[in-house]
Amino acid sequence: MDEQAEAITNMLSRRLFVELEASGRHVHVTKEQAVALFGHDLTPRRPLSQPGQYLASERVTVKTDKGEIARVAVLGPARKEGQVEISYTDAVALGVTPPVRLSGELEGTLPVTLVGEKGSVTLPRGLMVARRHIHMTPADAALQHVSDGEVVRLKALTPRPVIFEDVVVRVSEQFATYAHLDYDEANACGFHRGDLGMILR
Amino acid sequence: MDEQAEAITNMLSRRLFVELEASGRHVHVTKEQAVALFGHDLTPRRPLSQPGQYLASERVTVKTDKGEIARVAVLGPARKEGQVEISYTDAVALGVTPPVRLSGELEGTLPVTLVGEKGSVTLPRGLMVARRHIHMTPADAALQHVSDGEVVRLKALTPRPVIFEDVVVRVSEQFATYAHLDYDEANACGFHRGDLGMILR
Repeated sequence: MDEQAEAITNMLSRRLFVELEASGRHVHVTKEQAVALFGHDLTPRRPLSQPGQYLASERVTVKTDKGEIARVAVLGPARKEGQVEISYTDAVALGVTPPVRLSGELEGTLPVTLVGEKGSVTLPRGLMVARRHIHMTPADAALQHVSDGEVVRLKALTPRPVIFEDVVVRVSEQFATYAHLDYDEANACGFHRGDLGMILR
Repeated sequence: MDEQAEAITNMLSRRLFVELEASGRHVHVTKEQAVALFGHDLTPRRPLSQPGQYLASERVTVKTDKGEIARVAVLGPARKEGQVEISYTDAVALGVTPPVRLSGELEGTLPVTLVGEKGSVTLPRGLMVARRHIHMTPADAALQHVSDGEVVRLKALTPRPVIFEDVVVRVSEQFATYAHLDYDEANACGFHRGDLGMILR
């Protein structure tokens, strides 16, 4: 493809589609919690699609009274409050029914314990099922005529097509444009890396 | 509610909605396979929503070269050919990527081994991810203007609403009217027992 054709293709793609990503279960911690769990702050291991975000080398066990899941990914950098984002499948393993919440919306989320190699931390709240959402740059949001906080339907252009309703759009200069599903949702639509979605209204 | 109001409600419900059910991973076997696995034919333990179908008392381990899942449900009565219906989440545990198929459509499905308390059986094919579908009685299909083999969209009226596309309708006098999702799909839409779906076209 010559340069001009490629530029046109990219522009059309940004107007029409959002790349899908599946987020596995993961934990966010504060700096103090990282020190309590690992004896030091988080160690970046690999960058994530959102600028500045990374998978840490450290892992934790996530525990409730009813069950536990070992070797859960920890994402950095450290946050103001710890939280644990899981799927409903994970919730069954933990024997609990957490509310569905956007990352950072901690009201009504469940207590949970994290166990690291140096210690453990009990969060009074923070356990949630991650709510599906779309990260967008202001430029891509303008191209697709959506705004921060808007709730849309997202058609997954996948082998097992699904339209996800009640998907929140979040717009920020800090973001890269990706739609985030959990693994239940990714499996329900037969997602493979690189699959695209389309915002419907 | 008086009798007349109840009759009207039921009729409206049959015209508008289909009750959703989540199907867990399960196995169908032939009579010969049951004898090889358990030393006898299947023992009915509890009836399922589809008339004549039952959960058997017997359980099997489902094995591939890459993994296994213990204590998988066996459904009766015996069939003409064995098969194993799993979710993509289960497929990860088994280390394989089976095709998505309707029950009974075995072409291209993967080989799999079943282990019972008396012996084991290797199926040359039969491992599939179950394709979502709607069982309907001819009367309900007529009320909702759909026919056998028709592919529809199914809106799950659930707390985490999803529209499932590519849902096959199967109509038979032998059926009770229910939409069947696997657990990935049920979790993706936040399903609870008794939730309803709505056919869209």
